[in-house]
Amino acid sequence: MSSPRVHVRYWLETGDDPQRAAEVIAGEQSSGTFLKLAGETPELKARSGARIESLTVLEQAAGASLPGGMASDRHTRCELVLSWPLDNFGASLPNLVDTIAGNLFELRQVSGLRILELSLPQAFADAYPGPAFGMAGTRALAGVAQGPLIGTIIKPSVGLNPRETAEQVRQLVEGGIDFIKDDELQADGPHCPFRERVSAVMAVINEHAQKTGRKVMMAFNITGELDQMKARHDWVLQHGGTCVMVCVNSVGLVGMSAIRRHSQLPIHAHRAGWGILSRSPWLGWSFPAWQVLWRLAGADHLHVNGLRNKFSEPDEVVAEAARSVIKPLFAEAPMTVVPVFSSAQTGLQARDTFQALGCADLIVTAGGGIFGHPDGVSAGVTAFRQAWDAAMQGIDLKQHAQGRPALQRALDFW
Amino acid sequence: MSSPRVHVRYWLETGDDPQRAAEVIAGEQSSGTFLKLAGETPELKARSGARIESLTVLEQAAGASLPGGMASDRHTRCELVLSWPLDNFGASLPNLVDTIAGNLFELRQVSGLRILELSLPQAFADAYPGPAFGMAGTRALAGVAQGPLIGTIIKPSVGLNPRETAEQVRQLVEGGIDFIKDDELQADGPHCPFRERVSAVMAVINEHAQKTGRKVMMAFNITGELDQMKARHDWVLQHGGTCVMVCVNSVGLVGMSAIRRHSQLPIHAHRAGWGILSRSPWLGWSFPAWQVLWRLAGADHLHVNGLRNKFSEPDEVVAEAARSVIKPLFAEAPMTVVPVFSSAQTGLQARDTFQALGCADLIVTAGGGIFGHPDGVSAGVTAFRQAWDAAMQGIDLKQHAQGRPALQRALDFW
Repeated sequence: MSSPRVHVRYWLETGDDPQRAAEVIAGEQSSGTFLKLAGETPELKARSGARIESLTVLEQAAGASLPGGMASDRHTRCELVLSWPLDNFGASLPNLVDTIAGNLFELRQVSGLRILELSLPQAFADAYPGPAFGMAGTRALAGVAQGPLIGTIIKPSVGLNPRETAEQVRQLVEGGIDFIKDDELQADGPHCPFRERVSAVMAVINEHAQKTGRKVMMAFNITGELDQMKARHDWVLQHGGTCVMVCVNSVGLVGMSAIRRHSQLPIHAHRAGWGILSRSPWLGWSFPAWQVLWRLAGADHLHVNGLRNKFSEPDEVVAEAARSVIKPLFAEAPMTVVPVFSSAQTGLQARDTFQALGCADLIVTAGGGIFGHPDGVSAGVTAFRQAWDAAMQGIDLKQHAQGRPALQRALDFW
Repeated sequence: MSSPRVHVRYWLETGDDPQRAAEVIAGEQSSGTFLKLAGETPELKARSGARIESLTVLEQAAGASLPGGMASDRHTRCELVLSWPLDNFGASLPNLVDTIAGNLFELRQVSGLRILELSLPQAFADAYPGPAFGMAGTRALAGVAQGPLIGTIIKPSVGLNPRETAEQVRQLVEGGIDFIKDDELQADGPHCPFRERVSAVMAVINEHAQKTGRKVMMAFNITGELDQMKARHDWVLQHGGTCVMVCVNSVGLVGMSAIRRHSQLPIHAHRAGWGILSRSPWLGWSFPAWQVLWRLAGADHLHVNGLRNKFSEPDEVVAEAARSVIKPLFAEAPMTVVPVFSSAQTGLQARDTFQALGCADLIVTAGGGIFGHPDGVSAGVTAFRQAWDAAMQGIDLKQHAQGRPALQRALDFW
């Protein structure tokens, strides 16, 4: 029986003949060598070689998008689909990445290369656990039966000590928030040690939960070395916490996979550093391809930026990213995760976000969109929730604001 | 006492006023928020804020190098040095990366951003082990007292089974090679299982070592999930192997750090995927900054490409990369590692490589440059070594070839 195959769709720009460039890439990333070798038999190539499944010329470029490639007066842009036999590397995410995203971006035949789509055989679903909680588990822990989890981020990002952090958390939980997260810059620095912060914050959250019957979910940033992450996770668990946050790019696939197998809590995956992998349109990863890795490795929540954000990603990229994380990965193992919307979010993006995603299974975090409310945090959270009610019911926001003073006043400052 | 600081030098291109852009970056990556907050006091900013140490305008760009930034008719390129107090995050590589290489590449104020240089306080030398073997340990294990380790890579990259791999290794060790490595594409795929490969290969290497008293170093690619890497490392150790290879980008910092703390063998660090981080001149990492992370985490050997390589990096970039890994990191903890030169290498690059690095403490791997010799592998290795002798002694290569038939014939095909 022939090996199942991994399929990858690339955007490629080349100064070479596109067919030859495709062959060089396929060869470099499988059985090929620059010098013909006796050992590279036709049987070996047929069994182990990467295969060009399709090559579609899109357009001619004005010049090379990235420097360093071969000299050429003709640069062609194409879509290239390659496939690899799983027999080459097995169902291993690191070995997969070395194959599909290894030494190919530096080839002289390449003046632009971007991974657009990644499709994996069932063996990966068998080898990796995927998210343990996802949306259903998150809703159960946070006590939010429907609609988005309305959240925020501790600010300033760094600089508060544990006591000051807990004070901010007190305002937030009393204001009715569903979800809070550490900033990705806040981990276990000497000025705000992790254990003290968790103890102080969870005292506030637990006390509030006892009064109200609902425990606000706080994503504590456990990012660090593996033993540290495990110990921090355990500390959060012991103190009644319900979520941990991991910055996936700085931790890496192996660390993420290892903490997933240890964790008893949902993992909030932060994508800090994503710009390095994606900001050049001629290089790197598209989000829909990249997110496959982290869902398999076990993320429960995954950051997707937000519509009309303060960063450089346009809305259609954000919408496509958000939809990608709720699209099933495998027929019998969907491994869908919770998209986290953030960056300059207010109730004004609720309707478009709801329509772009097609549901309200999400977390949205806002800073100014909540704190900026003239009547305080509670009114800010209420207004946010009301804006989402309007979005989900298809009611015009201004109309919905009538008779709802929190939303009414929010519309003035959003 | 004030906190020690981390310093980072960036290349920045911005459509904004450079000073304002620098302030946004510094704020975003420390105590700043887009909305002024009550909690962001002057004391907090002074203690926890990133500081602009210098900002030097270099030139005006013709336009934005990367899309997605703010609309502007003026894009300025500068060098920006920022510093952060260690108190924000402590001596943690993942938390450092989230801070200096996190959510800043996506800022609208940025139309280009690249990390050029990274300087860390002593606390990192105390928190991380660095390389356990380096050049001295590698020389001792490989039995190569001076000059480079002459090496090669198993080819075809994938497709050989364990028995065929061992056959190739037999030719190589009998040919007098010092160092062999798995291709980064070869790990533990079903077609060439790791354990069988190691057993078959080490039988050959051990037998040869018993005859000759010198054990050829083979870097087995253990890249995988953490438990797999540990088990593979142990298997190599049990079978008398002397080196393991890890693809650092696909494994990530936390996985690398964890395997370093487990390993009793030198770690050969492969940089597959480096092109994603570096191929755009307007984005990502320079090698001299990036390599700091992996030396601290514990790499013993680190790939630096090769002069006149088949990839897109020009020689000056390769030379700078190679020199960077042998420059001491800390006065009392130099953590220097072995640069690994590869890609289209022959004896012809020996002289320039020696001069660029300033010493012969290195590994060089060649494929065609050895296998292509008309008199076979042994003559190929001999010729390579003779070319390096000439380079180290400052003798002209053609002159040195007189009376040395292996080198003489090699000059014809190199």
